[in-house]
Amino acid sequence: MNRSYLESFLPPSRLLLGPGPSPVAPEVLMAMAGPTIGHLDPAFIGLMSEIKTMLQLAFGTTNDVTFAVAGPGSLGMDACVLNLIEPGDKILIARNGVFGTRMCEVALRGGAQVIPLDFTWGTPIDPQAIEDALKEHKDIKFVGFVHAETSTGVQSDAAAIAAIAQKYGALTIMDAVTSLAGIPIKLDEWGIDAVYSGSQKCLSCPPGLSPVSFSPRAVEHVKHRKSRVLSWFLDITQVMSYWGGDKARAYHHTAPVNSLYALHESLRRLHVEGIEASIARHRAAHLQLAEGLTALGLELLVDEPFRLPQLNAIKIPSTINDAPLRASLLNDFNIEIGAGLGPLAGKIWRVGLMGEGARPQHVSRLLQTLDNAMENQRNEAISLAS
Amino acid sequence: MNRSYLESFLPPSRLLLGPGPSPVAPEVLMAMAGPTIGHLDPAFIGLMSEIKTMLQLAFGTTNDVTFAVAGPGSLGMDACVLNLIEPGDKILIARNGVFGTRMCEVALRGGAQVIPLDFTWGTPIDPQAIEDALKEHKDIKFVGFVHAETSTGVQSDAAAIAAIAQKYGALTIMDAVTSLAGIPIKLDEWGIDAVYSGSQKCLSCPPGLSPVSFSPRAVEHVKHRKSRVLSWFLDITQVMSYWGGDKARAYHHTAPVNSLYALHESLRRLHVEGIEASIARHRAAHLQLAEGLTALGLELLVDEPFRLPQLNAIKIPSTINDAPLRASLLNDFNIEIGAGLGPLAGKIWRVGLMGEGARPQHVSRLLQTLDNAMENQRNEAISLAS
Repeated sequence: MNRSYLESFLPPSRLLLGPGPSPVAPEVLMAMAGPTIGHLDPAFIGLMSEIKTMLQLAFGTTNDVTFAVAGPGSLGMDACVLNLIEPGDKILIARNGVFGTRMCEVALRGGAQVIPLDFTWGTPIDPQAIEDALKEHKDIKFVGFVHAETSTGVQSDAAAIAAIAQKYGALTIMDAVTSLAGIPIKLDEWGIDAVYSGSQKCLSCPPGLSPVSFSPRAVEHVKHRKSRVLSWFLDITQVMSYWGGDKARAYHHTAPVNSLYALHESLRRLHVEGIEASIARHRAAHLQLAEGLTALGLELLVDEPFRLPQLNAIKIPSTINDAPLRASLLNDFNIEIGAGLGPLAGKIWRVGLMGEGARPQHVSRLLQTLDNAMENQRNEAISLAS
Repeated sequence: MNRSYLESFLPPSRLLLGPGPSPVAPEVLMAMAGPTIGHLDPAFIGLMSEIKTMLQLAFGTTNDVTFAVAGPGSLGMDACVLNLIEPGDKILIARNGVFGTRMCEVALRGGAQVIPLDFTWGTPIDPQAIEDALKEHKDIKFVGFVHAETSTGVQSDAAAIAAIAQKYGALTIMDAVTSLAGIPIKLDEWGIDAVYSGSQKCLSCPPGLSPVSFSPRAVEHVKHRKSRVLSWFLDITQVMSYWGGDKARAYHHTAPVNSLYALHESLRRLHVEGIEASIARHRAAHLQLAEGLTALGLELLVDEPFRLPQLNAIKIPSTINDAPLRASLLNDFNIEIGAGLGPLAGKIWRVGLMGEGARPQHVSRLLQTLDNAMENQRNEAISLAS
């Protein structure tokens, strides 16, 4: 690159159909560019209250401790796990992809005794296996799992898992980074105790914020910890002095003001559309994609009942060279799709139809372009061989 | 408020002369509203490299581990402290305001043995006291201190403190949240080992990012830890697989793409102006303010040699009612200034002249408005009394 850093950066215009970030509506980008105000300005405190209300509705909860962690989804994972666990606590974590694996790592660093429960990548978590593990191991305090595995495109039955955890007196920690607003989430109905999501998936907001929510039971648990939460920044008993209800707001950290403008606008757009309508739109886009892929002779990795509409894992045909195909989509056609991770690297593409990405015209453009790009690659191979 | 959350939020237009966030240039806001691209897009990786180069220049360092933590300055504090300390480690921390006090709390939660060293709020850290403490206590591994105390408007002699720490073989952790680009910082010349700053002070970028830098000595220390860094998200050995030099970038977390557009533009503007020029501009604005305050019969809290140009602590006259005065500035005149914190609550105002705030027209507007608002309050008091 011959750029000097003294030149302004002009980002290219990509159609984001990877595992996130997703396309952001112009209205959300413009909201983000609003004039910065103070993090204790009464106008800003009002904005925070509205964000909290809209997050509660999106999560299906009345949890008072519902807010946006001032960092990406991975920091939300740290927030949920580090607030709940104490050194020596037993936590059962289901691993069927990258993010369950990461949750084990986060809990281990926090000093927990981690009991991992493995499932083949590309398959859902089996609730029966959770129950068996809870029977086998005594004193498991927490069950951690991923609702929508972004690395494989699999959804698991959160309601069933939460019901079993409750039966055995364990608190649940749920990764909802990719699920929020793309498939139904009903925290209160299901009885989930701690959840984290991300702004940059089905909410179609720029990355950098992690909506979280803690049940009253989880909050009581945190209040009665024997040891302090390892991270001052993430301690919800501290953060809530700033994000909390009707009390005076105390300074905790400087909120990412403009990022929260964007989150407000993206949540506002979600609620204007309606959550049910958003979920139906994701479903319709997925069905359109699945049908088009079949016509192209391509197959999805995941069995039909467990497919995430918003994250489609496509098996890469043996005749196609993965990296050059994705590079061609990006560089020649300005479309981003995702690579496979871990054991699925080189074996799948991950196509996200998230938020603004879940629109018929984007699905059509992808199908058409994918067809062309694969055809081009095959023709190049033939011309090289001849 | 009779707003519905289904209405878009339109922020008021404030002149931000508090302790941060500072005013943001329109160019930076527009950069933030650029189309979102993927966090692994080659164009984005190029942007990250330029940000790294510009941060190195701003910090006065060639440290390879220089990047922006994806969260506000308080998370940067967590990042520096939690990467370096291990349970049981002794750390000496100077406390002369809110942020030294916070660093003690962060280190305690990380399991360190904290030796706090107190100085009166409003006075600088005495390097001789640091040396005495290092002599008295054996095995102190780290010295933590705040370069520019945002809560009091005091600067301390970072070069002298770092030289003493080195003499006794301790690594230094420096809070540069408010100092970066407002007063000189020379990490390499001074021998600072870990530093964190904030985007929303003298860089005049929206809040939400924390530039950090670690010396090669600090990085070696982290690599040879006995225990793992408590936070997966903050572990620099992990983060650098994404922010790192010439190697292939590995996915770690989803970077806050649009926030980094803004940081790039604000750093670009800093380097176009020149760091020396930026520092001189902060100094000139401060002198203009100090002169104007004297004319109004107001005094600064801090002795002249230790005053921060970018954060001016003004003694509140006994005839003035603090909270209503600040409320009037905000609501009637759209100017934000900061309140005192801790023992200085109700006793000082904190006027930030940071980044874009350090301009003569803003200083004039503040002086004029402060004069009017104080006059109004005195007149109201007289009319109530008569």
